[in-house]
Amino acid sequence: MSTISIIGAGGMATAIAGRTIKAGHTVEVIGRDQSKAQAFADKLGAGATTGTYGAAPKGDIVILAVPYGSAASVVADFGAALGGKVIIDITNPVAPDLSGLVPPSGSSGAQETARGLPAGAHVVKAFNTLFGPVLAKGGRLDAFIAGDDGEAKARVATFLGSLGLRPLDIGALHMAQTLESLGLLMIGLAKNGAGTFDIAMHVDIGLAR
Amino acid sequence: MSTISIIGAGGMATAIAGRTIKAGHTVEVIGRDQSKAQAFADKLGAGATTGTYGAAPKGDIVILAVPYGSAASVVADFGAALGGKVIIDITNPVAPDLSGLVPPSGSSGAQETARGLPAGAHVVKAFNTLFGPVLAKGGRLDAFIAGDDGEAKARVATFLGSLGLRPLDIGALHMAQTLESLGLLMIGLAKNGAGTFDIAMHVDIGLAR
Repeated sequence: MSTISIIGAGGMATAIAGRTIKAGHTVEVIGRDQSKAQAFADKLGAGATTGTYGAAPKGDIVILAVPYGSAASVVADFGAALGGKVIIDITNPVAPDLSGLVPPSGSSGAQETARGLPAGAHVVKAFNTLFGPVLAKGGRLDAFIAGDDGEAKARVATFLGSLGLRPLDIGALHMAQTLESLGLLMIGLAKNGAGTFDIAMHVDIGLAR
Repeated sequence: MSTISIIGAGGMATAIAGRTIKAGHTVEVIGRDQSKAQAFADKLGAGATTGTYGAAPKGDIVILAVPYGSAASVVADFGAALGGKVIIDITNPVAPDLSGLVPPSGSSGAQETARGLPAGAHVVKAFNTLFGPVLAKGGRLDAFIAGDDGEAKARVATFLGSLGLRPLDIGALHMAQTLESLGLLMIGLAKNGAGTFDIAMHVDIGLAR
């Protein structure tokens, strides 16, 4: 069991923290607003602690659970304090009118966030295709990951597995572009063909044999 | 039962034609090389016919089952002959090194193809997230669709349903960008976490209730 640090206190942070605690890990929550972070930790219970915003997080895995629009400034606020950490980027950088993705062409939110990190820190894209309420409900869900550092990706895969999720590696960090598109696709499906956000994407393997 | 026209004779054309015939539809195959098209029709059997390349296809639904690199020239060769047709674009416009998608930023293969069509023709993106062997095997698979014309999309959904697929509408034609990203994601998954192209993406609806 490990200590997992979570920056943020929204719906996704809550869903991920809940599963993380249920799996027996210790959660450290970190926020710009210390009283809000404390309230979040108190609500989580199970020994959840708060860290100091901008200082080195306790966990080797740090989940960046803030909106994409805030990710760059949060990473800048931590600076060298994130050195050596595995950063999980969960963001869906979609335009407010859902017309597309906001990172520059040929890049992704995860790659943009990676630019701001200190040496030795590695970004792994994960969780962005899972909607909070579905994640919170439990059950074995498929969790796609993308990243450039094999060891960091292996550690995230182990963490996801410990939460009862099935990690599915889709390749290097530039493939975060496809995961962010998949996030937008699922929002489109929720608003059109499915009519609900209560959906999850699942991969069937071994159909044609 | 309808007549479905298919332009192309590759693996996806074969898989789609097979399911279409099995569903009781009549298939018309069309290709630049008439003898190749005839051989394809003969192999399909079940009353499959050949059409004339560049002339009006018999089917109201025309499946453009050629590589993305050929799609624009094929559409230009048909010109006004595609007027009033529902064109299903199945292409995965991925870079040869799988580093990304080749259509211009903010567009998709489907949107680029739509530019070349005559008035009254409507493009619906479909089939691009299904690998040929999995599609050929049969079984109820999820088939994502995107398109701007509601009636065209409804007709494609009915056609897909007749093949035993579950049509899932993800929105307007610009959402083809996300479907083409999903195609690339699945190729990435096949080459990384799954280790096989024998995979299909499935949506679970109603998990959190």
